[in-house]
Amino acid sequence: MPPQYAPSLRSRLAPLLLLLQTGFIIIFAFYVEIERKGKADAFINFYAEFQDVNVIVILGFGFLGTFLVRHGFSGSGFNLLVAAMATQWALILNDIESLYYRGKMRIDLRSLIVAEMRTASALISTGAVLGKANPVHLILIGLLEVSGFILNEKLLQFFLKVRPLESIMMLHIFGSLFGLMLTGVLYRKGSEHPFEKERFDKKSGLFSMLGTAFLWMFWPTFNSVLVDDHTPGRKLGAVCGTYLALAVSAVTAAAVSVLSNPKGKLNLVHLQSCILSGGVAVGVSVSAVQHPWEAMTIGFAAAVISTIGFHYLKVIHMLLAFQCHDTRAILSSHGLPGLLGWLAHLILQIKDSTNPVIAIRFALFHICALLITIALSVTLGILTGLLVKLKFWRAPQDKKCFDDQAFWEFPRLAERK
Amino acid sequence: MPPQYAPSLRSRLAPLLLLLQTGFIIIFAFYVEIERKGKADAFINFYAEFQDVNVIVILGFGFLGTFLVRHGFSGSGFNLLVAAMATQWALILNDIESLYYRGKMRIDLRSLIVAEMRTASALISTGAVLGKANPVHLILIGLLEVSGFILNEKLLQFFLKVRPLESIMMLHIFGSLFGLMLTGVLYRKGSEHPFEKERFDKKSGLFSMLGTAFLWMFWPTFNSVLVDDHTPGRKLGAVCGTYLALAVSAVTAAAVSVLSNPKGKLNLVHLQSCILSGGVAVGVSVSAVQHPWEAMTIGFAAAVISTIGFHYLKVIHMLLAFQCHDTRAILSSHGLPGLLGWLAHLILQIKDSTNPVIAIRFALFHICALLITIALSVTLGILTGLLVKLKFWRAPQDKKCFDDQAFWEFPRLAERK
Amino acid sequence: MPPQYAPSLRSRLAPLLLLLQTGFIIIFAFYVEIERKGKADAFINFYAEFQDVNVIVILGFGFLGTFLVRHGFSGSGFNLLVAAMATQWALILNDIESLYYRGKMRIDLRSLIVAEMRTASALISTGAVLGKANPVHLILIGLLEVSGFILNEKLLQFFLKVRPLESIMMLHIFGSLFGLMLTGVLYRKGSEHPFEKERFDKKSGLFSMLGTAFLWMFWPTFNSVLVDDHTPGRKLGAVCGTYLALAVSAVTAAAVSVLSNPKGKLNLVHLQSCILSGGVAVGVSVSAVQHPWEAMTIGFAAAVISTIGFHYLKVIHMLLAFQCHDTRAILSSHGLPGLLGWLAHLILQIKDSTNPVIAIRFALFHICALLITIALSVTLGILTGLLVKLKFWRAPQDKKCFDDQAFWEFPRLAERK
Repeated sequence: MPPQYAPSLRSRLAPLLLLLQTGFIIIFAFYVEIERKGKADAFINFYAEFQDVNVIVILGFGFLGTFLVRHGFSGSGFNLLVAAMATQWALILNDIESLYYRGKMRIDLRSLIVAEMRTASALISTGAVLGKANPVHLILIGLLEVSGFILNEKLLQFFLKVRPLESIMMLHIFGSLFGLMLTGVLYRKGSEHPFEKERFDKKSGLFSMLGTAFLWMFWPTFNSVLVDDHTPGRKLGAVCGTYLALAVSAVTAAAVSVLSNPKGKLNLVHLQSCILSGGVAVGVSVSAVQHPWEAMTIGFAAAVISTIGFHYLKVIHMLLAFQCHDTRAILSSHGLPGLLGWLAHLILQIKDSTNPVIAIRFALFHICALLITIALSVTLGILTGLLVKLKFWRAPQDKKCFDDQAFWEFPRLAERK
Repeated sequence: MPPQYAPSLRSRLAPLLLLLQTGFIIIFAFYVEIERKGKADAFINFYAEFQDVNVIVILGFGFLGTFLVRHGFSGSGFNLLVAAMATQWALILNDIESLYYRGKMRIDLRSLIVAEMRTASALISTGAVLGKANPVHLILIGLLEVSGFILNEKLLQFFLKVRPLESIMMLHIFGSLFGLMLTGVLYRKGSEHPFEKERFDKKSGLFSMLGTAFLWMFWPTFNSVLVDDHTPGRKLGAVCGTYLALAVSAVTAAAVSVLSNPKGKLNLVHLQSCILSGGVAVGVSVSAVQHPWEAMTIGFAAAVISTIGFHYLKVIHMLLAFQCHDTRAILSSHGLPGLLGWLAHLILQIKDSTNPVIAIRFALFHICALLITIALSVTLGILTGLLVKLKFWRAPQDKKCFDDQAFWEFPRLAERK
Repeated sequence: MPPQYAPSLRSRLAPLLLLLQTGFIIIFAFYVEIERKGKADAFINFYAEFQDVNVIVILGFGFLGTFLVRHGFSGSGFNLLVAAMATQWALILNDIESLYYRGKMRIDLRSLIVAEMRTASALISTGAVLGKANPVHLILIGLLEVSGFILNEKLLQFFLKVRPLESIMMLHIFGSLFGLMLTGVLYRKGSEHPFEKERFDKKSGLFSMLGTAFLWMFWPTFNSVLVDDHTPGRKLGAVCGTYLALAVSAVTAAAVSVLSNPKGKLNLVHLQSCILSGGVAVGVSVSAVQHPWEAMTIGFAAAVISTIGFHYLKVIHMLLAFQCHDTRAILSSHGLPGLLGWLAHLILQIKDSTNPVIAIRFALFHICALLITIALSVTLGILTGLLVKLKFWRAPQDKKCFDDQAFWEFPRLAERK
């Protein structure tokens, strides 16, 4: 007879959390200090944007993951846990070069924001295994993904002189490919049929709508926060462009969703996955977008491929014989729009450049940057998947997937009458 | 036998969305550019307030409309759809004069905020037909209402030299009268009895409470964002006044709600509709309010008439033989407080003016502004109602009103056990 | 036979609200004016932080109180009501000295923020009697707690020259002891067994998670808003320290929760009560924390004692024969971390001081400040409890505790199918 309960995580989760956390505190004690030379001005200007990014990471991604009717606590609670760990780790890795030069790393509001954006890439990856992994898995994935993503950034900056703004915006491509490989490696037999408990109800759909709404509202901040405001209008352009792209992709996703349904109904899951696609695509191409209409066109195209991608993903998986179960549809909500944004960046840059030599040079660099990102994310995703697959981490049984009951204690739960 | 399903919107909604969206992108491509001359300072100062207004429009109005137990997805989802369309359209109409003079329209953060505020007036109107209209209706209503409202603003500014801050704050009066006329024209026989599915439950009431809380918290921004800060204390006065008026109207609405109930219980719907009334009234009179106590008194009066209005509205409708079914009670939550705010503005201005000639002159102008607004909103509301009544748009049957099932696909819905 | 319905509040609540509100308006009319000399700059810088504090008070505390399945409307609605009253009252008491000197009190954005923070201390107290008190009780408690807390601040400032930042941060200690005494005095026989309706369900748990998430996200603002930014890096240090302490305490609370459960499961109530503890403790010691690792260590210790405190609280209550039923567990979520923060402040200050005389002097002052706060909060809590216990206020029967039905009217509630 199989065990009736999900395996206990007491001997895995608690030591892991306490060990890592103590380690982080020790590292901070010896090597990290507050940047005390910044102007008060810079602080104030950044603070509201820091809070927006914080809301995106904790509330947006957290409540986006509550759409599963029996998985709401895990969706929002584990998201917070992973975010709290990954941000600390990203903060440590952020300025690791200075450790070599000065013996100390400095943190300020900007490094906190950057750390949270890197955490977002990890939260995209964990979205693919949502409901099928236990918190130990999620934390390992979060920390490894963030490390890999920072490695990718440093490689791009070192070899190709890619600017920080552009290398960090690769997070959508990196996060989704990493997550996809991971969930491919962790594939469970029999999950071509949906899991028994992978269902949503109308209230959990509304919680998830809440998360989506926060992501949608604060996405302009996510795309513009690292754009410098030395050139007048650059930051404003990023904000307006992102806002318009989001509006266009909301409208377009709704239209495509209605078209793709025989009864002409809207699909809430389409909407929640695809209305952000415009923001994602404009984010990846933000340093090349000059005019609002460019952002809007990108948003239009992103919503079309994202919604169609979502709809026909299953067929594609079958065709490619690529077995993979992607809970939050990160391929169509982050991967495809991210790649489109990369392409749009390339096209816009070539269009705007007057010198063909520079254009070709840029194209080569741009293609290399994509190839490095793909190679690294795929490799690291597979390796992480293999590590996480070890029996040692006590994965939940198929029957316990998508079920809060496996990880949460409900002492005084009201009975349904 | 009547059809069992709500009519399919595939051939109506998708073409409408795609056509309009493509049209908007083309207009933006040819005629709209980003304002590049603004100071970085102005951007930073405005950005947090822009986000607050965004939250009011998307989250506040969206989740306010989730109180109907079977209509939560439509309430929040269609709100986002209408907002995304109407804001783009309002952005185009905003600066249409410059098109004539310079051939280009410019957008910046301020024009985005103004566009969102105009969208708010459309979202007030759609509140009256919530649950009884399909998304095609809502989008038509949204775009026509915004156009009408901008026309009203331009008329007020052209003929009466009303300042932009004051003409835009007419949005509560314009939006609610427009919506009321509309729902009067669209009146369905038999709806003196409540619709079968027009019900809420305790969880949908909490979602709606969430929307209300966000409106309540960020309303000070909504009222103060367009107040210029050249005179020290003006903007601070608007913020403090609105905050205090909101606090007073929350307390007063609770008191009146308890008084009007024979068992001395509170009515959640009263509270959700009426605690904002103080903010609405102070918004309309914001340029005349000088002292906190004036704002508080306006908030007190607004909450009283709003709550009593809500309570006795049905009787009034019967008396006037004016048949109209107002789902979100926009008359008592926006219309009456808006009119009160208009009156308060008049009284305060006359009280503060030393010269009787100027006072009379102001009163005349002020009354004319109200009359124009009423005339235009009523006329356009009726015309829009007649257009929307056309069978071509495939309104849902009475039985399908207030039901997400008519418009949304639920593929993997968990069954209730 | 006992009465079947909860006693009507019509003759208690409505007059109380209307009387107090009219009184407040009159006081504002005669004695309060807007500060008109502030720089526009100061306004802008403060505004986003004001909104964060507003979100903490209204949404954070409000939705934290929705975890009880039948008490969500009361949890969020009465919170708003108490906040609206207490903030007005705190605003009046804030600057009461100037009334003596100048005949007028001035309000600006800072005094609004301070008033909301004092309101937070009242909302902590009311958390202890959540579900067992009617709105009349809650308003009385709110107003008396705020008065007592301001008295405590003025005493600390007058006798011990405690700086405003430090005296206001005592709010966690004051609020939780006040609430604990109160709920001790109001103890109902038989409540060693849990109340019949004191239960949560999975959806109400998510609403409460939402409140927790907002508190968690915006807590850095709560701790840093009153830190002056004259010394570069002070405010940044407060923000980064609080953020890191919150992250650490989220991780640690999860670990301790898993350890303390025999099956190795997480307890959502632990998490919701204890992930803030780091923020609370760092708040109390914010003016002494210099380095991120100090904040992280405080966060670690706070989460450990808070989670263990939560777990063994019942036993402690039994041992001490101290009968008290603390609905929202304010002792472990605010009281213990607050005391820890006080201790951390003492240790850090002594560690950093070079002169032993000054260190001892500081320790004496610091201990006196704590003793005054404890003495005042305990005394006033007991007195308030005795006042509230009067039959005149019509407390709900035991059977009606934790039940919205006692106070709210549900006219068109959908039946469960």
